[in-house]
Amino acid sequence: MKFYVMTLFPEMITGGLSYSILGRAIKSGIVSVEAVNIRDFTEDKHKHVDDYPYGGGAGMVMSCEPIERTYRHLCEKRRLRSRPRVIYLTPQGRVFDQTMAKEFAQEEDLFFLCGHYEGVDERVLDAIVTDRVSIGDYVLSGGELASMVMIDAIARMVPGVLTNEESGSTESFEGNLLEYPQYTRPEVWQGQRVPEVLLSGHHAKIEEWRRQQSILRTWETRPELLDGAELSKKERKFLEEIKKNSGAEM
Amino acid sequence: MKFYVMTLFPEMITGGLSYSILGRAIKSGIVSVEAVNIRDFTEDKHKHVDDYPYGGGAGMVMSCEPIERTYRHLCEKRRLRSRPRVIYLTPQGRVFDQTMAKEFAQEEDLFFLCGHYEGVDERVLDAIVTDRVSIGDYVLSGGELASMVMIDAIARMVPGVLTNEESGSTESFEGNLLEYPQYTRPEVWQGQRVPEVLLSGHHAKIEEWRRQQSILRTWETRPELLDGAELSKKERKFLEEIKKNSGAEM
Repeated sequence: MKFYVMTLFPEMITGGLSYSILGRAIKSGIVSVEAVNIRDFTEDKHKHVDDYPYGGGAGMVMSCEPIERTYRHLCEKRRLRSRPRVIYLTPQGRVFDQTMAKEFAQEEDLFFLCGHYEGVDERVLDAIVTDRVSIGDYVLSGGELASMVMIDAIARMVPGVLTNEESGSTESFEGNLLEYPQYTRPEVWQGQRVPEVLLSGHHAKIEEWRRQQSILRTWETRPELLDGAELSKKERKFLEEIKKNSGAEM
Repeated sequence: MKFYVMTLFPEMITGGLSYSILGRAIKSGIVSVEAVNIRDFTEDKHKHVDDYPYGGGAGMVMSCEPIERTYRHLCEKRRLRSRPRVIYLTPQGRVFDQTMAKEFAQEEDLFFLCGHYEGVDERVLDAIVTDRVSIGDYVLSGGELASMVMIDAIARMVPGVLTNEESGSTESFEGNLLEYPQYTRPEVWQGQRVPEVLLSGHHAKIEEWRRQQSILRTWETRPELLDGAELSKKERKFLEEIKKNSGAEM
């Protein structure tokens, strides 16, 4: 899978994605990330990529021409046969989630456009962008960090990027339950013992305890996720009891 | 404001945050970001920072001791008088938003703990972490990108980080309406004209058009935000009309 990022800060992208699991996937050639500087495609002699907004207002707006030229350069260089999906990172987009990550992971080529300043001229967005996506309800200085977040989440869904060992945790989140607590050595740390059940070697009991912990945490932090969770009859009963107890405490 | 990041990839943090608005704020000394390598605080001769999970399962769990030592080192070095807020980045946390960014921006010192592998031993989280935060419903390879996203969003709320020019866009998002479309020169690009009203010089009309565009976009992409938006009587009527028309189209 190939990621292309159109940005004013290409080093930020390539630098930030060269670590850990994604860095390994890039080195092994399973995925590639190419970041291209929009500023290289301006014909303005001062290399301007932005201008004042029509109608007035604060800040600067990124111009159509350099962005469209960057995009065309990449499509031609890569000899893309069909129009690729182009993601524009903006708080004005659909909110990114794991389901979207899986969907985008089906693409062979995926483009990202990182905006800066007050935004990007709407006409070039209409011309090249296929998806407007937000990574959450907060304002960032530009699309760079947001595209890095998306690339990391999407690349993890590409076959071969995660080892078998690593793929477990991603799947658990998809069951609409938060993860159970984890413990490792030593058995006692600062007076705190690992829960007894985890030392029992009794796999069914461990599994049951972990599921219950997941349900408990989901209820405490993100109760709305439980609507989509698949629970056994016994687990549903456990959840009813949590709800009853938390009601009594209030 | 001082940010401290406990991580296995400190260069990823400092590299990724040295650009654009945040890079400028760091250079001018308004904010600082110190990333510390947890691996430097292990006493294991092989520099291991993780171990197998109790109770079995895939992956490795980060151990208590190196993390707690990193934390203590930073507190002592910085001579912190009171216990700082320590954010652990996890999909199991409260979901980050702009309100939280504003709240965190009140702190003088803010710590981040970036997990990797399958997670972090629960006991050290209980011991040092004050806030478990998620930047969205997707799985990342570690907490690094998530902490960078949070630092960017929070630092923007620190007085002096944004110029007057820049601060406009952040505020508009807080009104629970998405941003209106922006346009800059040229007036005609690839046959597409800038909307006439923006060239009119009629400020009240421009303002009205922009507000209507914001309402329209919010309705199309994130209708749930409209519940919290402050609309004038006229704007409420405009919204009713949009709703009626979209109903007719369906």
